[in-house]
Amino acid sequence: MSKKKVVLAFSGGLDTSYCVKYLGEEKGFEVHTITVNTGGFNEQEIQEIETRARTLGVASHKTVDETRNYYDKVIRYLVYGNILKNNTYPLSVSAERMSQALAVATYAREVKADAVAHGSTGAGNDQVRFDMILNILVPGIEIITPIRELKLSREEEIAYLQSKGVQMNFTKAMYSVNKGIWGTSVGGKETLKSLGTLPEEAWPTQVTQTGTETVTLAFEKGELKKVNDKAFAHPTEAIQYLQGIAGPYGIGRDIHVGDTIIGIKGRVGFEAAAPMLVLKGHHALEKHVLTKWQLSWKDQLAQFYGNWLHEGQYLDPIMRDIEAFLTNSQQHVTGTVQIQLHPYRYQVLGIESAYDLMSAKFGKYGEMNLGWTGDDVIGFTKIFGNQTAIYHQVKADVDGH
Amino acid sequence: MSKKKVVLAFSGGLDTSYCVKYLGEEKGFEVHTITVNTGGFNEQEIQEIETRARTLGVASHKTVDETRNYYDKVIRYLVYGNILKNNTYPLSVSAERMSQALAVATYAREVKADAVAHGSTGAGNDQVRFDMILNILVPGIEIITPIRELKLSREEEIAYLQSKGVQMNFTKAMYSVNKGIWGTSVGGKETLKSLGTLPEEAWPTQVTQTGTETVTLAFEKGELKKVNDKAFAHPTEAIQYLQGIAGPYGIGRDIHVGDTIIGIKGRVGFEAAAPMLVLKGHHALEKHVLTKWQLSWKDQLAQFYGNWLHEGQYLDPIMRDIEAFLTNSQQHVTGTVQIQLHPYRYQVLGIESAYDLMSAKFGKYGEMNLGWTGDDVIGFTKIFGNQTAIYHQVKADVDGH
Amino acid sequence: MSKKKVVLAFSGGLDTSYCVKYLGEEKGFEVHTITVNTGGFNEQEIQEIETRARTLGVASHKTVDETRNYYDKVIRYLVYGNILKNNTYPLSVSAERMSQALAVATYAREVKADAVAHGSTGAGNDQVRFDMILNILVPGIEIITPIRELKLSREEEIAYLQSKGVQMNFTKAMYSVNKGIWGTSVGGKETLKSLGTLPEEAWPTQVTQTGTETVTLAFEKGELKKVNDKAFAHPTEAIQYLQGIAGPYGIGRDIHVGDTIIGIKGRVGFEAAAPMLVLKGHHALEKHVLTKWQLSWKDQLAQFYGNWLHEGQYLDPIMRDIEAFLTNSQQHVTGTVQIQLHPYRYQVLGIESAYDLMSAKFGKYGEMNLGWTGDDVIGFTKIFGNQTAIYHQVKADVDGH
Amino acid sequence: MSKKKVVLAFSGGLDTSYCVKYLGEEKGFEVHTITVNTGGFNEQEIQEIETRARTLGVASHKTVDETRNYYDKVIRYLVYGNILKNNTYPLSVSAERMSQALAVATYAREVKADAVAHGSTGAGNDQVRFDMILNILVPGIEIITPIRELKLSREEEIAYLQSKGVQMNFTKAMYSVNKGIWGTSVGGKETLKSLGTLPEEAWPTQVTQTGTETVTLAFEKGELKKVNDKAFAHPTEAIQYLQGIAGPYGIGRDIHVGDTIIGIKGRVGFEAAAPMLVLKGHHALEKHVLTKWQLSWKDQLAQFYGNWLHEGQYLDPIMRDIEAFLTNSQQHVTGTVQIQLHPYRYQVLGIESAYDLMSAKFGKYGEMNLGWTGDDVIGFTKIFGNQTAIYHQVKADVDGH
Repeated sequence: MSKKKVVLAFSGGLDTSYCVKYLGEEKGFEVHTITVNTGGFNEQEIQEIETRARTLGVASHKTVDETRNYYDKVIRYLVYGNILKNNTYPLSVSAERMSQALAVATYAREVKADAVAHGSTGAGNDQVRFDMILNILVPGIEIITPIRELKLSREEEIAYLQSKGVQMNFTKAMYSVNKGIWGTSVGGKETLKSLGTLPEEAWPTQVTQTGTETVTLAFEKGELKKVNDKAFAHPTEAIQYLQGIAGPYGIGRDIHVGDTIIGIKGRVGFEAAAPMLVLKGHHALEKHVLTKWQLSWKDQLAQFYGNWLHEGQYLDPIMRDIEAFLTNSQQHVTGTVQIQLHPYRYQVLGIESAYDLMSAKFGKYGEMNLGWTGDDVIGFTKIFGNQTAIYHQVKADVDGH
Repeated sequence: MSKKKVVLAFSGGLDTSYCVKYLGEEKGFEVHTITVNTGGFNEQEIQEIETRARTLGVASHKTVDETRNYYDKVIRYLVYGNILKNNTYPLSVSAERMSQALAVATYAREVKADAVAHGSTGAGNDQVRFDMILNILVPGIEIITPIRELKLSREEEIAYLQSKGVQMNFTKAMYSVNKGIWGTSVGGKETLKSLGTLPEEAWPTQVTQTGTETVTLAFEKGELKKVNDKAFAHPTEAIQYLQGIAGPYGIGRDIHVGDTIIGIKGRVGFEAAAPMLVLKGHHALEKHVLTKWQLSWKDQLAQFYGNWLHEGQYLDPIMRDIEAFLTNSQQHVTGTVQIQLHPYRYQVLGIESAYDLMSAKFGKYGEMNLGWTGDDVIGFTKIFGNQTAIYHQVKADVDGH
Repeated sequence: MSKKKVVLAFSGGLDTSYCVKYLGEEKGFEVHTITVNTGGFNEQEIQEIETRARTLGVASHKTVDETRNYYDKVIRYLVYGNILKNNTYPLSVSAERMSQALAVATYAREVKADAVAHGSTGAGNDQVRFDMILNILVPGIEIITPIRELKLSREEEIAYLQSKGVQMNFTKAMYSVNKGIWGTSVGGKETLKSLGTLPEEAWPTQVTQTGTETVTLAFEKGELKKVNDKAFAHPTEAIQYLQGIAGPYGIGRDIHVGDTIIGIKGRVGFEAAAPMLVLKGHHALEKHVLTKWQLSWKDQLAQFYGNWLHEGQYLDPIMRDIEAFLTNSQQHVTGTVQIQLHPYRYQVLGIESAYDLMSAKFGKYGEMNLGWTGDDVIGFTKIFGNQTAIYHQVKADVDGH
Repeated sequence: MSKKKVVLAFSGGLDTSYCVKYLGEEKGFEVHTITVNTGGFNEQEIQEIETRARTLGVASHKTVDETRNYYDKVIRYLVYGNILKNNTYPLSVSAERMSQALAVATYAREVKADAVAHGSTGAGNDQVRFDMILNILVPGIEIITPIRELKLSREEEIAYLQSKGVQMNFTKAMYSVNKGIWGTSVGGKETLKSLGTLPEEAWPTQVTQTGTETVTLAFEKGELKKVNDKAFAHPTEAIQYLQGIAGPYGIGRDIHVGDTIIGIKGRVGFEAAAPMLVLKGHHALEKHVLTKWQLSWKDQLAQFYGNWLHEGQYLDPIMRDIEAFLTNSQQHVTGTVQIQLHPYRYQVLGIESAYDLMSAKFGKYGEMNLGWTGDDVIGFTKIFGNQTAIYHQVKADVDGH
């Protein structure tokens, strides 16, 4: 009888290396590893992961580049919605995990796997995201999470791998780093407490720029198409190009405190230069071209969209409905934004757009206008405050003051 | 027959000086000026305004210090709600005008005025705020707005005042500045366009600090009570003390783009060092002590509260209902926040609170926990995603994919 | 020199008949009348209106049948959103006026009119709706509203018309009735007060059915396509057919109390048999095929959509964004609904749909299920309540209870 | 060593009778039963339950009358919020279970129980509600749910009880009925499917009234204080009195379809004459005395409050914040409402209130007003539509149409 097939989401780190050996040798599975690149791995890293998989003796290894797909299906809407969780965090990891889980589920169906495994622990958000997507897209498939189930210590994992003759770098990094196109998260001892920030050396991108420069971002219907007049085939390339410029300024570093899916509070550092500039540039443009209620409703729907995505609920059809709203809202979000970069900070200088509603043609704030008269505003104010005026007169009549 | 009484909101500038003469000499009113200080005028400025009023020949002049009242009735809720209009602007002027209009209306009732006058033009938000409050609180009173009605140019106003023998500094400032305890707005030629920021010299507070320091803010039930262990009799004093520390770093400078009440877009610069630190410090503390849904609903209600205040609707009873919600939500918002100041920027370092929900007792994010098991999370995820799983199975059954 | 052209929205009643004469003879306009049918006029009524216009001596008269267009552009979204203003009123008149104003504006542009006139008074919602649409779609055009401007009494209007030799039925009806495909409003002396309902004889459709019957409504992607297996070319025909069945039961009669655009409260009776059955049947179907969060967000967006439409803001682009959301949400809203009709009431009996999420396959409410175990729910509950549990432990630790 | 103590929520039915024997004889617990009356049991039923408990050999039995407390802590806010889940269901059972779980948890702490048991199955909402409250209020206590854990059939339970010599009526009722002050739910074979309503005989209250009568409800600050001028010591008594009048009309019968906490759809019949009249009467009054935005925000917050209560999250502090909002909103909700009762239906006739904003003093809808002029409305409309007008002009300029 042939062995059962397991698809394992593989990053090349200690945990998923342990999973390869454990699933193959203790559980008797034919192990097929898959690495989903969401823009965080370069060619060399991809090669190293693949080599590690082969060395560990997998039946097959597959690398999927989901970067564009990740943008098309998720990041795009995060931009349309100017989404920062708790007003701070661009959802770098949350969004990426969703995209990875979708690719793993698709692959598991393709190869008709009997089981899917991932290296999540029992204490974070990722276990929920992976399990959720798998439960939904490949219902009934066995999900195996050795690290969560066995509650092994790092030392136990190392001892096991060594006993199997595996040689790799077992040194624990001081900071756990997760890199993707929409930001890099950094966890360490400082983020396990409520007070304290990361030391300078913990940030993956060191600050090497000391001067200042201005970048111009060109958006078409809400999507980044050009940076400083340089056009790109796909927004992901524009984002990566912008990251190359802005990263060395140390822009977009912050600490996020938020609610995990499992109800505890979590704290994590992140750096996200390009995402932050894209989001803030996009928002600046929107403030000029959208109406008041478009801005207001976009905020409400986007806050929910970000939270629900964070909680792994990407496949709830409400997400598609919100995406339809957001896409429709972007028809006039076309124009350029200028942003000045400084070490550790940036400043939006303003926008230019054919759809700018702050056109001098229709009156200038603080100056007299052609479109209406002072009498119009007097009438407006009388009617606009009419109900509250009636309320206060009724109240005074009854309450006697 | 005795003259009719008009109460005039008086700032000592060109427009309201014009109004004194116009109302008294052209309209035959007995002119009673009132200046409402919302924390923006110091003792010397108050004296100068009073002297100007007397020189112009008013029947009486009154100065009202509304700073504490302004905080108690408005700013407090802006802090509870972490309110930044369009995610940027602390509503410095919007909130202040409301407070001033309330004081003027109260005074007009006290002195049984026949009319109230203010110096608003026909192109901004302030006319609506003043008219609205007056329509509601002193219904039927005559409202006179000479600048709006006569549409005079600056030159015409000066010529008229000179013809009446008035001597004052008629030089137009390059930038129009409005100062209050909750921030200072700055308008100029750059803010009349969609692109361009204010030059360094336009900012009222120049950057003189070049190093870095850490401030500790202590909140009790959402209100700022101490700065660096220094206690204050009233939060307004703590805010002013903090402003003294943070202002010279150039913190809290930005450009706001927003929707005016009359439907056009407006752009204005502002500096608000203390407000920004109070708001962001308060929000950081809340992220640790409030539950997920408290944070979420506070955001929605506060966004509306800020916008409705901005639009002059402070007296709508919905505002009182939201204030009851916000006040109730602050019971655990007690603790300290550390913020590091740098020239032009700041960083929240973290918080300490007895009510911190990110307590190691209840499990650490990313580490195994005592309060629940991996199996609990597996069960949770199955149920949490149950409806979406059913949705996708039904869809696959019907649509055949 | 040729006369200036005015386009007049014409209903054939006293007010708009007055307007024809006034505009032509007092103001010297060439008067072009237009009557927009939104499903409320039958062929004979249309003929009578046209005859009246000709008799009054208009330069031209045009009848536009907007019924289908009205459905396609407005009613459709009211159904998708299950929209009842203040949980009661299907927005019969509000929606219809919007549609009429759009048609009048389009016609005014087509014939290059110099002015547009309508018969609104200065005390209702319709003046705002007409003016708003005209200001936006034919900016700068002169708007003339003789009834509002001249504040004439009914008697003065009659006297004027008689002086011009006009002969028509000048008897005032006891109840003012406005009929359209989405409902008929009825105003009278009872609705001018806060207490009291309309007498039986005031309702345009009298109750002639005394028994009971069951109708079956078939929806496809949220639109009514069949009634009792009878298919229709367009949903408007299905609605009218259903109205023929349900109207004589006296279904959908109620009194609506709501906020007018100008800030006062208004009360109006209405009958809307078909609209009510379509809305409630559609909602019943949605409860079975949409997810929890789809239902929740649809409610919020639809409440706003209805109110904003009511206030004449149909042309705000936020309305198009919400329509995109609503349309996307209807993909599975396909199935049949059975409703039992009784005199003065109805009862939804249930639904059948291939997309029904209440499928026995996935577990029955109150019975044990195959898809998950009791242990899954125990785990779910532990995690689902985790944050609140932590909150209460922290609170007990600090507050000592 | 003394036996461990278990507190068992006891209704006297088959399931909880089984639990008494199972916990005592198989698990060796000292069994203390508690029955929480939320208005659904009369004196005789309470006696019968107590007798059954004693017969089954419990160590102690306690009856707690929570009716007033249930109103004060929960129902009150359901009235303030006009809460009907999915616009249909007054949350009869959801709210009651919460109240019962709170009383059971309190009792378990009082008697220092080692464990708490309840008779919930693994397929409904109640298990989540009980477990959630117990996890939070008596953290760490053992929760035992024999029916859920053992998955016994009805026949197995009966066989076991008979083997222990228990004699009781083992006949299965055709419909499972749950009665409380806020409504009675009715489940049966018709509610397990998506189509079909309950037969006449399934409804606990039969329709015996064939005429019509009018009831007058008097509210003070949102609470029902009098019915037909009869005053009551507590709103619960007014509700029960009203139920006595309205129940025999068959008012408030309906079928609710909704989302269970565990993600499946559930359908249940209910009758709730008094709750429905209280809710609809209260809402009618509110439409007259609250401002537009109070009505709008109350709806949004109340929808969430009802859903979150339904999902067992009563102890989340966001619920207290919303209660503060709702309580504050009720200051003017004082007045009387007249409702006409007919067999199977009712009609709200209108309201009388000193706080009625629809006062003729401030203008009548559809008639000319004293408070403002037609010109005021013209000015209002121009400004109110200004942004959308600008939007369309900008769009036409760019898009060329």
